[in-house]
Amino acid sequence: MKFATIEHTSGPAAAVAVSEDEVAVLPAEFTDVEAILRASEAQRLAAIREATEVGERLPVAELSWLPPVLRPGKVLCVALNNSANPERILSGPDTPAMFLKPSSSLVGHGRPIRLRENDGRVHPEPELAVIVGRAGADIAEDAAMSHVFGYTILNDVTSPTLRGEDTFHYRAIHPDPETADGVRFVESWVSYPARYKGADTFGPLGPWVITAEDIPDPHDLRITCSHNGRLVTDDTTANLRFGVAEVISFASRYLTLEPGDVIGMGTALRSSPGAGSAVQNLDLNRFGGLVEVSIDRIGTLANPVQLR
Amino acid sequence: MKFATIEHTSGPAAAVAVSEDEVAVLPAEFTDVEAILRASEAQRLAAIREATEVGERLPVAELSWLPPVLRPGKVLCVALNNSANPERILSGPDTPAMFLKPSSSLVGHGRPIRLRENDGRVHPEPELAVIVGRAGADIAEDAAMSHVFGYTILNDVTSPTLRGEDTFHYRAIHPDPETADGVRFVESWVSYPARYKGADTFGPLGPWVITAEDIPDPHDLRITCSHNGRLVTDDTTANLRFGVAEVISFASRYLTLEPGDVIGMGTALRSSPGAGSAVQNLDLNRFGGLVEVSIDRIGTLANPVQLR
Repeated sequence: MKFATIEHTSGPAAAVAVSEDEVAVLPAEFTDVEAILRASEAQRLAAIREATEVGERLPVAELSWLPPVLRPGKVLCVALNNSANPERILSGPDTPAMFLKPSSSLVGHGRPIRLRENDGRVHPEPELAVIVGRAGADIAEDAAMSHVFGYTILNDVTSPTLRGEDTFHYRAIHPDPETADGVRFVESWVSYPARYKGADTFGPLGPWVITAEDIPDPHDLRITCSHNGRLVTDDTTANLRFGVAEVISFASRYLTLEPGDVIGMGTALRSSPGAGSAVQNLDLNRFGGLVEVSIDRIGTLANPVQLR
Repeated sequence: MKFATIEHTSGPAAAVAVSEDEVAVLPAEFTDVEAILRASEAQRLAAIREATEVGERLPVAELSWLPPVLRPGKVLCVALNNSANPERILSGPDTPAMFLKPSSSLVGHGRPIRLRENDGRVHPEPELAVIVGRAGADIAEDAAMSHVFGYTILNDVTSPTLRGEDTFHYRAIHPDPETADGVRFVESWVSYPARYKGADTFGPLGPWVITAEDIPDPHDLRITCSHNGRLVTDDTTANLRFGVAEVISFASRYLTLEPGDVIGMGTALRSSPGAGSAVQNLDLNRFGGLVEVSIDRIGTLANPVQLR
């Protein structure tokens, strides 16, 4: 089943795909996909039946798309989770490293990625995203998939320029019982991602949420990224270092997962043969244009760059 | 005016202080302080009048406290924003560097900070927190204070052990038109804060939200942190490197601020004379105990450590 959140005459509305070309609008209390996944199964089925039987029909081609979840409790993203990375990582954790994007960074399919000159270099990062359906903490790996409501696409837009600006080289305070004041200073580097990962429009999400039963294997999906129609990334979710169940289980040991939470599974990095380029080389602030991220069975998330 | 969010018989409820010892519960539609600040001024005044005239009264000493805002759109925190830091920073930005904590990390006054052995070292960070009242992007510095609804206390609990684990030393991909594939690799360090700043219970917040008109100068407030009654930090918000208006204005150029957003202004770091210790030396996972953060005019946020 395929759901979307759209801008409708009366405000945001959830819709369900009834064919390749048409959606049916859900009853008014379902203002986004989060409302669908928070409903009981009986309520959800009743709402879908009502939508498909008597709900307003709209052509897919004319939809005004919003992020499927409008205000998730968190957008939790896994860093450097790709087979292309071992050669690049000199040292790093053996477990998923994670950061957050704010809900205010999310935009729907078709909406512009708005950049300013002092955002510096900005590149897209094509990712499979999990939509959490059921709350949980300390979730066992073999129970993890039952917490997945569905999947969508995240373009984890990133500015390495702002990352560089928000990196400190500093002397961290470490406890040391052998010193007079009980501390010693250790040279460290630390980087803070709220700007470089979390700026407005740095989180295109959508267009569809495909429910879990329609994605039998989330680790067997082709994922591509194109710029102005030129294929740049051509990868598969088989190359994720940590899979969906591992990430859910590990993350939930630290951060309680809530219905509607989005988990970005990490950037698909393998360049298309002959692309002569990595996705990090696509400086959107220099080239502008249209970015498209496609994942098998889910669809294509397309966002134009707007220089402001 | 002082507001709180409490666990009430029928669920979360907002309350207003009517004396030092007593609160009045607001009408049922006000389930937290965010509902108060999202209401129109007329609605808010009517709700407060109803509460003080006919609302249920509860003794402050018996309240079960929740985070004043239950599910803010974002908790945006400023890093290393303190006068004690210039000597520690070898290189870093001239503007506020920021990270996010998820709403799932927030806990109310009196609730435990729950730690596990593999959280490693964990220390408290006493901070003034701004509660945003009015949405805005690209807010001018001289208009910034009009976006503040009020102030509360954040204990920005942090694990430097998990920070170390989630730091990569890696070769970043930088564009370079002079190479065959258009990129070169640059040795970099990058750290990801979702675990070390965002784990469950790493965000004690409260107890009160004091409205802006009752805090004439947010940069003239004593801020202290005690552990088991021993004063460790004794600082003032006068030592913030970037002030409230500067942070709101800068942050809003990148991340649209929304009503209910929380802004952590950065750790008060100056040790109490004779404390013989820095707040980073308070390894809560080793010492357990009670952490109290106090700010003039706001109150005391106290949270016991629970080793699990």
